[in-house]
Amino acid sequence: MRLPAGFMAGAVASGIKPSGRPDLALVRFDPAAQWAYVATTNRAAAPCVLRGRNLLAGGRALGGLVVNAGNANCATGERGVADDLRLAELAAERLGREPQAVLTASTGVIGVPLPIEKIEAHIAAIELTSGLDAFAEAILTTDTRVKMSEQPLPGGARVVGVAKGSGMIHPNMATMLAYLFTDAHVDASELRSRWPEVVSATFNQVTVDGDTSTNDMALLAASGLAGPVPSGAFWEAVRAVARDLARQIARDGEGAEKLIAVRVRGAVSDEEARAAARAVAGSMLWKAAVHGNDPNWGRILVALGYSGARFEPERLEIRLQDVVIYDGGAVPYSGIALSQAMQAEEVRVDVDLRGGEGAGEAWGCDLTEKYVKINAEYTT
Amino acid sequence: MRLPAGFMAGAVASGIKPSGRPDLALVRFDPAAQWAYVATTNRAAAPCVLRGRNLLAGGRALGGLVVNAGNANCATGERGVADDLRLAELAAERLGREPQAVLTASTGVIGVPLPIEKIEAHIAAIELTSGLDAFAEAILTTDTRVKMSEQPLPGGARVVGVAKGSGMIHPNMATMLAYLFTDAHVDASELRSRWPEVVSATFNQVTVDGDTSTNDMALLAASGLAGPVPSGAFWEAVRAVARDLARQIARDGEGAEKLIAVRVRGAVSDEEARAAARAVAGSMLWKAAVHGNDPNWGRILVALGYSGARFEPERLEIRLQDVVIYDGGAVPYSGIALSQAMQAEEVRVDVDLRGGEGAGEAWGCDLTEKYVKINAEYTT
Repeated sequence: MRLPAGFMAGAVASGIKPSGRPDLALVRFDPAAQWAYVATTNRAAAPCVLRGRNLLAGGRALGGLVVNAGNANCATGERGVADDLRLAELAAERLGREPQAVLTASTGVIGVPLPIEKIEAHIAAIELTSGLDAFAEAILTTDTRVKMSEQPLPGGARVVGVAKGSGMIHPNMATMLAYLFTDAHVDASELRSRWPEVVSATFNQVTVDGDTSTNDMALLAASGLAGPVPSGAFWEAVRAVARDLARQIARDGEGAEKLIAVRVRGAVSDEEARAAARAVAGSMLWKAAVHGNDPNWGRILVALGYSGARFEPERLEIRLQDVVIYDGGAVPYSGIALSQAMQAEEVRVDVDLRGGEGAGEAWGCDLTEKYVKINAEYTT
Repeated sequence: MRLPAGFMAGAVASGIKPSGRPDLALVRFDPAAQWAYVATTNRAAAPCVLRGRNLLAGGRALGGLVVNAGNANCATGERGVADDLRLAELAAERLGREPQAVLTASTGVIGVPLPIEKIEAHIAAIELTSGLDAFAEAILTTDTRVKMSEQPLPGGARVVGVAKGSGMIHPNMATMLAYLFTDAHVDASELRSRWPEVVSATFNQVTVDGDTSTNDMALLAASGLAGPVPSGAFWEAVRAVARDLARQIARDGEGAEKLIAVRVRGAVSDEEARAAARAVAGSMLWKAAVHGNDPNWGRILVALGYSGARFEPERLEIRLQDVVIYDGGAVPYSGIALSQAMQAEEVRVDVDLRGGEGAGEAWGCDLTEKYVKINAEYTT
């Protein structure tokens, strides 16, 4: 996938990943680029996140981004802070930018010092091009595929996004990185006021609120080179790219074989609808049932019940793969036919709480034996 | 195990469980028994829970308890409410009590009408004795073993408890029933004011707050036949029994091979300590790491970070199986030796947040491939 005007990217294998695959990636921004940034609320946030927040608060333009995968540089003490700063310096040198204009990101194992000497040895070899694929590949950890998405804007501008998942669907489980780039011109104030809402409705809906990892971040950068676009069209495109990436992250959960897509409407508020959707998408029992093609709607009802969303069990409707299975009470359906319908890449749950106008979505994946295997044998 | 004076119990196989095992159980209380009751906050609470709350609010004495296992009688509409009332009537008849003095409980599959005719046909066959074992066996669903515990009180009185787990450690996943009986004399007002705190520190620590199932309940009943005991000794014994049962529930999580016991101290408050302990005990990644004997403390740190508890990552200490593995930063340790130490029935995590006087515990279990298998094939 091609980056919008004003962005160049590249990657190299520096030896941080034991596999020897590419693990160090850069993006250079046009000097006039504006940006917005949302990062983890985890109290054990990594140095890169603390530094990114400071850069955002400083109000300066961003000239580039460096990501290393394979090591989260988290819980690495004072050395970790120094290594993160050094990472910014090395990237700045390669990008021709000031270190204070370079955002850093690290993802991977926690508590192991960053092998900064490997980065020093290899960063100069990174070739910058307008292609995003090498970057998309290098930022992965346990992901099984690259995650990119794009949307056109009026007048030829574009929004292009790239992400890595956490393996597991809950970003509390590992790091979720997401970067969206556009050549549209958008004021920094508008970017920063509206980006968090997009993140709430998309990337945060592949998680349980607040359950973010130590290194999660989501960046939106606008070079402005393609000129202004209508605000409505711009945010629609940004949201579409973010939503698509969120779905790709959920679908590629560790060991996952299916995407679980939950839509809730009729809630008292959008916030409650999102909470209800997250509860269903994140329910271990429902995830296991989806894995087994089991239309066990009781587990959906239980998850809705503890989600915090207000509803009357006697009023709500639940659809599974477009089949009404609960309508104020159990509805007769063919368990065999529905189980067959669940043997799909995407299992859709649609809930109408019939109590208001709030709506929201969330995405998860099925829980498989493979997930357990992967995570029982990660570091040892 | 023998019940305290003033309680008689028994059970029978009524055919609700497909296995044909005992599934219908009764306890008769002395007419003077006092009681306290805490039940699920799930919005889709079952009729038995709604009825139990009404009984509690009514302020009447309780003369007995009936439990059926294999069917939760939840999300069964008006018929479910009628069936629950009929269950109380049938039990009352057998126990020689008024229906309004009988607490009902149902656990099992959701959304399937209760086969009340099976209960009608078999309840008269239940023999009441002072033994608790038949009751303990009959209330189980996917549990692999009975759960009982007792503590002596000064003067010969006792506290005796029985519980069933949810299979899975989070009671949001299935039903947790817990019943404690004592022959000590304790005022209803004291029982009701202090029982919820015991439940918070014990049974609710095998869950995430609010993530209770549709049918969870915890009852404390006192016949008074052994006379008064010192209040301090009484509550210490109640708490010890509740804690022991909570640990038994966690240890018997579906597919579980190990108990995960988390203790947190040095928190700003007991509440934050409990939240921190729950986050670690419930972390899917840490549960999987425990399964794989992987001393991956980064996952503990991440869970603490999103728990909501306040702390400084540079100050906290983490011990795993009594070995310090993090002390304001990574501490060198033998991964091989620690991995061997994790090959135990109980894996202990002790955290000192070094930020206050708050303390709390939580219990969970490891996440195994077997858990996924069990839950992918529950109803179909």
